[in-house]
Amino acid sequence: MLLQKIESPKDLKKLSIEELKKLSSEIREIIINTVENNGGHLASNLGTVELTLALHYVFDAPKDKIIWDVGHQAYTHKLITGRAKDFHTLRQYGGISGYIAPWESEYDHFAVGHAGTSLSAALGFAKARDLKGEKYKVVAVIGDGALTSGMALEALNQIGYLNTDLIVILNDNEHSISPNVGAMALYLAKLRKHPLYRFFKQTTQNLLKNSSIGKGLLAFDLKLERSLKSLLLENPMFEYLGFKYFGPFDGHDIPLLISVFKGIKDNLSCPVLIHVTTKKGIGHKDAEATPSKFHSIGSKSEKEKKVPTYTEVFGKALVELGGMYPEVVAITAAMPEGTGLSYFAQRFPERFFDVGIAEQHAVTFAAGLAKNGLKPVVAIYSTFLQRSFDQIIHDVCLQKLPITFVLDRAGIVSDDGPTHQGIFDLSYLRLIPNMVIAAPKDESELRDLLYTAINYPGPFAIRYPKGKGVGVELKNRFEKIEIGKSEIVKQGRDVLILAIGSMVYPAVEAGNILRSEGIYPTVVNVRFLKPLDILTLEELILSHNTIITVEENVITGGLFGAIAELINILKINKKVIPIGLPDKFIEQGNVQLLRDIYGLNEYKIAEKIISVLEDIKV
Amino acid sequence: MLLQKIESPKDLKKLSIEELKKLSSEIREIIINTVENNGGHLASNLGTVELTLALHYVFDAPKDKIIWDVGHQAYTHKLITGRAKDFHTLRQYGGISGYIAPWESEYDHFAVGHAGTSLSAALGFAKARDLKGEKYKVVAVIGDGALTSGMALEALNQIGYLNTDLIVILNDNEHSISPNVGAMALYLAKLRKHPLYRFFKQTTQNLLKNSSIGKGLLAFDLKLERSLKSLLLENPMFEYLGFKYFGPFDGHDIPLLISVFKGIKDNLSCPVLIHVTTKKGIGHKDAEATPSKFHSIGSKSEKEKKVPTYTEVFGKALVELGGMYPEVVAITAAMPEGTGLSYFAQRFPERFFDVGIAEQHAVTFAAGLAKNGLKPVVAIYSTFLQRSFDQIIHDVCLQKLPITFVLDRAGIVSDDGPTHQGIFDLSYLRLIPNMVIAAPKDESELRDLLYTAINYPGPFAIRYPKGKGVGVELKNRFEKIEIGKSEIVKQGRDVLILAIGSMVYPAVEAGNILRSEGIYPTVVNVRFLKPLDILTLEELILSHNTIITVEENVITGGLFGAIAELINILKINKKVIPIGLPDKFIEQGNVQLLRDIYGLNEYKIAEKIISVLEDIKV
Repeated sequence: MLLQKIESPKDLKKLSIEELKKLSSEIREIIINTVENNGGHLASNLGTVELTLALHYVFDAPKDKIIWDVGHQAYTHKLITGRAKDFHTLRQYGGISGYIAPWESEYDHFAVGHAGTSLSAALGFAKARDLKGEKYKVVAVIGDGALTSGMALEALNQIGYLNTDLIVILNDNEHSISPNVGAMALYLAKLRKHPLYRFFKQTTQNLLKNSSIGKGLLAFDLKLERSLKSLLLENPMFEYLGFKYFGPFDGHDIPLLISVFKGIKDNLSCPVLIHVTTKKGIGHKDAEATPSKFHSIGSKSEKEKKVPTYTEVFGKALVELGGMYPEVVAITAAMPEGTGLSYFAQRFPERFFDVGIAEQHAVTFAAGLAKNGLKPVVAIYSTFLQRSFDQIIHDVCLQKLPITFVLDRAGIVSDDGPTHQGIFDLSYLRLIPNMVIAAPKDESELRDLLYTAINYPGPFAIRYPKGKGVGVELKNRFEKIEIGKSEIVKQGRDVLILAIGSMVYPAVEAGNILRSEGIYPTVVNVRFLKPLDILTLEELILSHNTIITVEENVITGGLFGAIAELINILKINKKVIPIGLPDKFIEQGNVQLLRDIYGLNEYKIAEKIISVLEDIKV
Repeated sequence: MLLQKIESPKDLKKLSIEELKKLSSEIREIIINTVENNGGHLASNLGTVELTLALHYVFDAPKDKIIWDVGHQAYTHKLITGRAKDFHTLRQYGGISGYIAPWESEYDHFAVGHAGTSLSAALGFAKARDLKGEKYKVVAVIGDGALTSGMALEALNQIGYLNTDLIVILNDNEHSISPNVGAMALYLAKLRKHPLYRFFKQTTQNLLKNSSIGKGLLAFDLKLERSLKSLLLENPMFEYLGFKYFGPFDGHDIPLLISVFKGIKDNLSCPVLIHVTTKKGIGHKDAEATPSKFHSIGSKSEKEKKVPTYTEVFGKALVELGGMYPEVVAITAAMPEGTGLSYFAQRFPERFFDVGIAEQHAVTFAAGLAKNGLKPVVAIYSTFLQRSFDQIIHDVCLQKLPITFVLDRAGIVSDDGPTHQGIFDLSYLRLIPNMVIAAPKDESELRDLLYTAINYPGPFAIRYPKGKGVGVELKNRFEKIEIGKSEIVKQGRDVLILAIGSMVYPAVEAGNILRSEGIYPTVVNVRFLKPLDILTLEELILSHNTIITVEENVITGGLFGAIAELINILKINKKVIPIGLPDKFIEQGNVQLLRDIYGLNEYKIAEKIISVLEDIKV
């Protein structure tokens, strides 16, 4: 194994081209094996093996700063920066992160998980370098999907303007998670497919392949490239924006990449965009054929499921509702599969919109659709909807527009770590006027809430966790749920458990445990965080001495916050005890494990209540 | 007065070109007079008089949808859509909004106040039209400043891709509020300044001016324009993105604009971008010379101030701190004057960054700077920082980076209405782990908090209101304030008033009123919403029977929420009574008036406390 010899990128620089190629095969094998065991991002990581090796071969990290976008393509980077030995702990509790994590390695310069941040961060690194009078290269690696996110475009606009020494590697694989959409994607395709350009590309590649890797040759090639390009494309768009543009280059051709990177590193100190084309999933037959399916895969243990996921239940319910209501349209930000909207897209292609990684635009686009008479359903994961916070306030809720927000991955998300935990939405949505916020206790209630939302004349958010439902039977028909109506699941007397969404069933189970100990709790499915079911809750709070809230969200400003506020507004002299996530970022790990650590399963809920009741006795 | 005859855009269509020109003079005069009285946006509105008249002359609103971006350039639109009579109530309580307000007129299709929303909203209108099988034009009017906001760029990327019938008017005045920055601005300047292009522009204009307004002529000109353009600019950038591009045209030339709009309206049904150049402040000597100064001006009554504003105190303090700490850098999103950073920009130009209207990039750019050793100060108004919510969580707080966020315009903002009220920040920042949140009681404390923030090794937000400080003397030196330390301003016994930021002085004054009634309150300057001064607060809460919170923020999840949660966590059987803003959007009006309406001045606070104490007696 060559990889065993690579303790840092320094060791990489001793290898020959042939050895680098062999190393890339070894790395592919390790990635495939590890991801098959632990789950993780397969297709995106297989696509960047050669690119990463060439980058680390030419640049001197950690002195040179390589800033990765999203980070789910950086497994190779991890393997050659001292983390090969621990790589089998990938995405496990206490193990190697599936993303870029500065707390893990000095080679990870900037924490990431959401798409589109690398250009802004890299410009920050570059300008800090300039102001401090330091000398090194800053390289941002961004996918063509992430490049069309608003913040990346904002950064592009400033980089060219500030004209500093910064290299952008555009890793063009024609995908975000799904195939890319948008005018920029069409433009990149045009660059890739220009016949003269292809001819030129091959010529250069042959030239480079057959010669030694050297500065002299590449310097010449840069000139050749630019003069050829000026014949073909008067002014590629990136040049309008102040970049020197080079490419497209085959991102799996190590000697070519090394030559290009070296030539640019040695000869240029301005904004440069290097357009590299890669193939997602390369080296894995299935992943190469259907990369969106193999973008991210679950761990082995996760695969034995029969109960449908919330995602599937939502996706199929929306198809039914789409048939009933012609004004229903659906919007995703580059996640047709992940959100379950692919079912709707297939059935109603003309009423489905994939806007790309563009959460801000997604929401205001929906606002325009709603203002002109349609009923948009916007499906964005809890953590990514944070990007649309202002648009939800300013474009949707101010105008009280009938838009349904569907927040999948709300609560703890297995394995992906702090950037993907959907643990803030109850709090950040609750502070917005005019917003209805609901969380179903199970997949059947999800269907009814979706039906209710689509028939509601204002903004309505539904949040639910990643993964399978609780396994209840699904009805054939939809039933409206009264807005703001909670449900008393179990009437008791000793303690009042107010649970929401994913925590309702664990609360019920905790109640069963408590009853076996002689404690009789009342368990409530709060269902609507906003508006709260004030009348029911007031009566229940008055008739119980101990009140517990249970939520898979930070307790700050969430369900606990809402009940604490309510009790004060109602001037009731009672106290509430919160069970929920603390005021910190939640690390990666298996969701069951993390729920146990943070007290969010039936046993821990029961234990907590027993200890609370004992405290009171004392 | 011609304007008296214009009850709707229909009446406009009866006027001759000469009458339209006369009307534009009348409108300019009304705008200048009204803004001088009521305050408002002068330069931007003077720049769009002819553009608006030409748009409404050619298009048939409200059937055709004209979607304005920001809306602070739409006074002419308001004057000719039935609101001339009420225009003297501009920006007053119950009066005409300074922005686009659908609740005001059927000609206002989409509420707006923040920049960059029009393209997304217009695409929503257009796709809804297509799906419903309706026929009309959708026109978005966007400034060159707003065009570089991330969400507008996201929308641009989708519009060209969906290839629907949508006209974008790019109102290029080379400014957002200040002169524009960024590579796109340079590119637009290049388009404007191309010598052959200028020649061509004049030729077309002369041709059009000297002939009747007609479809035939313009259709010809469209062809001419395109063939000429293909000689000059192989592929203007917007064409790469799927638009047909026309321009630049003189945006003050009514017959030219009418010809262009009519020709395009009658002949094209694809994405079109019409590049129009206008001059901010035209027709007002001073506003034309320094448009950023006259972008928005205060009302007459506001102008008699001697006490410095918070903005000035912050701006000058940062210059002092910049001298003391070479690692301090400052970032604005297109608001160097409004935020007070212009002082810093003048003194330390190389350490100052105006990123344009790009709040997302601003924050992650700051994160990059911080990660590479600098201490960025990011100054963004409270309501605009909502755009950076995800970046604050994901790029700053997760990595606990030392960035100071300075939120001006926090609380009620005079006259601008619901889109500009900074009333959510205490709540949306409080839910984020690792964030310190402070609000100074006066301008002297602002200086010390800024000094404290810059010396703190993590994210630190400071919020303060628009307008002048309370008039206290400023010290020459800075003093550190202990993180999380509150201040007991007045010790009493009967009631505990916990006030934050702008509400501390009114609370103290309310205390004086109460003492004259024989009630002795303790008044606390909470100062830090996060971390709370738990020890001090616990002792105070335990020693008082009645607890009141006072904040210029929604009470949902803000100071009230924090204290309600704290009392529960501490298991104290007391209740808190909130004074703050209710769970709704706050209308426009004078800030004193609105504070009075919502109970946020000394008299209303005192009254509320008296009534609370009487309730308790009963």
